[in-house]
Amino acid sequence: MGLFTRDIKTFDDLFVHTLRDIYYAENQILKALPTMIDKATDPTLKQGFEKHFKETRNQVQRLEKVFELHGVDVKGVTCPAIDGIIEEADEVAGEVADKNVLDAALIAAGQAVEHYEITRYGTLIAWAEQMGRKDCASLLRQNLEEEKATDAKLTALAESRLNRKAA
Amino acid sequence: MGLFTRDIKTFDDLFVHTLRDIYYAENQILKALPTMIDKATDPTLKQGFEKHFKETRNQVQRLEKVFELHGVDVKGVTCPAIDGIIEEADEVAGEVADKNVLDAALIAAGQAVEHYEITRYGTLIAWAEQMGRKDCASLLRQNLEEEKATDAKLTALAESRLNRKAA
Repeated sequence: MGLFTRDIKTFDDLFVHTLRDIYYAENQILKALPTMIDKATDPTLKQGFEKHFKETRNQVQRLEKVFELHGVDVKGVTCPAIDGIIEEADEVAGEVADKNVLDAALIAAGQAVEHYEITRYGTLIAWAEQMGRKDCASLLRQNLEEEKATDAKLTALAESRLNRKAA
Repeated sequence: MGLFTRDIKTFDDLFVHTLRDIYYAENQILKALPTMIDKATDPTLKQGFEKHFKETRNQVQRLEKVFELHGVDVKGVTCPAIDGIIEEADEVAGEVADKNVLDAALIAAGQAVEHYEITRYGTLIAWAEQMGRKDCASLLRQNLEEEKATDAKLTALAESRLNRKAA
């Protein structure tokens, strides 16, 4: 969320504000992922980030459809939470020399991003359903399921191989 | 994570750094919760935040035990992610006038905090186990289970009553 919270008067305002928060977040993630792809050394991790980059572009389009269905302008609001999460990811990606340790750190950073998205989509879906917007909820749920799947893949990757190499 | 990432050379360094990240985060949450307790209007939500305040104090003590078991200094490192998440929570808590909408926003903020903790504890437990530190993993898992339970209670509260009142 961010600068415009003083405009939140109704539940619908809160929904739209949070939609703009995650729209900003997804766009920041699109900007951050190329660095993560570049830094990742394990081929499976690199491919995983590349796949998620493509998914994220689709997720942005789904969010634009939700704005349209709900009849409000497509725009983002600054989200200090995702900015902080990405700032941490950038710092770690830039500072760890050992490639296996770096991969482990990148997975952790990726999972922090996914969990932020999971909580926001969970909230937005609940609110959309409460307001009777099943059409919006359905699109948001597709994004949520992709985030959960990405998080699960990162967990599996960490447990199967990368942490062992780093340890 | 934060300022000291240039000191991360080994997997152990990464573990200790992330431990200090969540230690800082838990302490920031201890400072933020009284405002959330104060702002919450629904009695069950208020009590839930009060209970979590007490749990968080215990979680800080468990983390101090983990530092001790691992033989490193108890200290935090600035974590831009939790700072951003709390900044958002504060903004919303300060700016929404309608009490039902405010409660819905506070639940969403609380869940964003919980999800950050869930991802960090998940990572730390995996790393502790990878390094053969089952003693540390066991303490961290107690914290993780409390965070998951808090998140589930917030979801149930939102779905059962508060969002309906706000909508």
